[in-house]
Amino acid sequence: MSEQLTLYLHKVELALIEANAPYKSHQINLSNKPEWFLKINPIGQVPAVTYGGPSVNPEDPSPLSAKLAESNVILEFLADLYPDSGLLPKDPVLRAKVRFFINATTKHIEVPCYGFVRGSEPYENVLNGIDDFAVGDHYTIADACITPHLARIKAVTENDLGKFPVGMGYKLGEELKAPKFAKFMKYLQRALERRSLKQTLDEESLITFFKMIFAGRTQ
Amino acid sequence: MSEQLTLYLHKVELALIEANAPYKSHQINLSNKPEWFLKINPIGQVPAVTYGGPSVNPEDPSPLSAKLAESNVILEFLADLYPDSGLLPKDPVLRAKVRFFINATTKHIEVPCYGFVRGSEPYENVLNGIDDFAVGDHYTIADACITPHLARIKAVTENDLGKFPVGMGYKLGEELKAPKFAKFMKYLQRALERRSLKQTLDEESLITFFKMIFAGRTQ
Repeated sequence: MSEQLTLYLHKVELALIEANAPYKSHQINLSNKPEWFLKINPIGQVPAVTYGGPSVNPEDPSPLSAKLAESNVILEFLADLYPDSGLLPKDPVLRAKVRFFINATTKHIEVPCYGFVRGSEPYENVLNGIDDFAVGDHYTIADACITPHLARIKAVTENDLGKFPVGMGYKLGEELKAPKFAKFMKYLQRALERRSLKQTLDEESLITFFKMIFAGRTQ
Repeated sequence: MSEQLTLYLHKVELALIEANAPYKSHQINLSNKPEWFLKINPIGQVPAVTYGGPSVNPEDPSPLSAKLAESNVILEFLADLYPDSGLLPKDPVLRAKVRFFINATTKHIEVPCYGFVRGSEPYENVLNGIDDFAVGDHYTIADACITPHLARIKAVTENDLGKFPVGMGYKLGEELKAPKFAKFMKYLQRALERRSLKQTLDEESLITFFKMIFAGRTQ
């Protein structure tokens, strides 16, 4: 793969690192998006990537590169570009299982997690989602999808950060110590130890960010 | 592909036909789901497929077959099984565009269409979604995704069927005759003429079904 590939951003970055893909990463200030970014994604959302064309300054994208948006579309794109990375297995049935898992974790873990930290859903909904948790042994785009949420679950449960009543974050952390979540917690631990996550996650910034957005939480 | 493949169901069927894939199709009564269907999909939703294992009676599924659910997961699975079908192009960038299009049509056409027929969204939302419409020349899983909705748009606009005020379905049909929708309407016409749709769509049943579910519509 000699085409240039520039990433505009997070689970996508995990997949890039796991695939040993060469890429440039460029941060976008989401609260004050630069004008030029609309050339990359007209609706202004991250992540976005440019692929191919000449190697240019990320803030002056070339009209000759392909522009791609939406994290799951980009994850599939990376699995297509790097068929030997294992980001998707080769077997069609196993590939289908990875995709099914992505949909399931979005629905049963990502959505309840956000609901919980925003104070609109009880932590029991997170536990119910985790109860059925199952993932394969090899790192795939499904792992890249869920890992950022695992990092957030860790931050929320260790620091009680969210728009929920005080103590509920700690309580979720306690409940997750039950034997029935042992498999999930082992997976979470392994996922957080991967080089790809360590290289992209600044835990302190995440905590500072959560403290900022949940400053006005209920007491 | 000599493995048996049994489909438990619609956009998936379009893709099967377009790929010239051999398959067995089996209808499920959604309002009274048979017990055995839970062996295929524990949450009881269609479409679902079994793949591989011995050739059996669809109502007595073999434990040796793989069971797959969720229409978009199954569409990707078929594109994987039939890489030469064109259901997905070979080029990674073009594949990404097909997937982006699927997400876009779901959000901008499917969701507003359902909102419109249920009476919760004005038909203008459907027109806005269609305004940006663009699709490639070759039949892909994106076409399979959107075609069933095109058939519904036709039924709704020709028969004024929906939980909207009387006449709004006809009005949407009139608005779609404007020059700016010419490309979309040409695509709709071509899509509805394909053998795969003709073979799977019973227009009369669709109309009868719509009349039944919208029997209590507002006047």
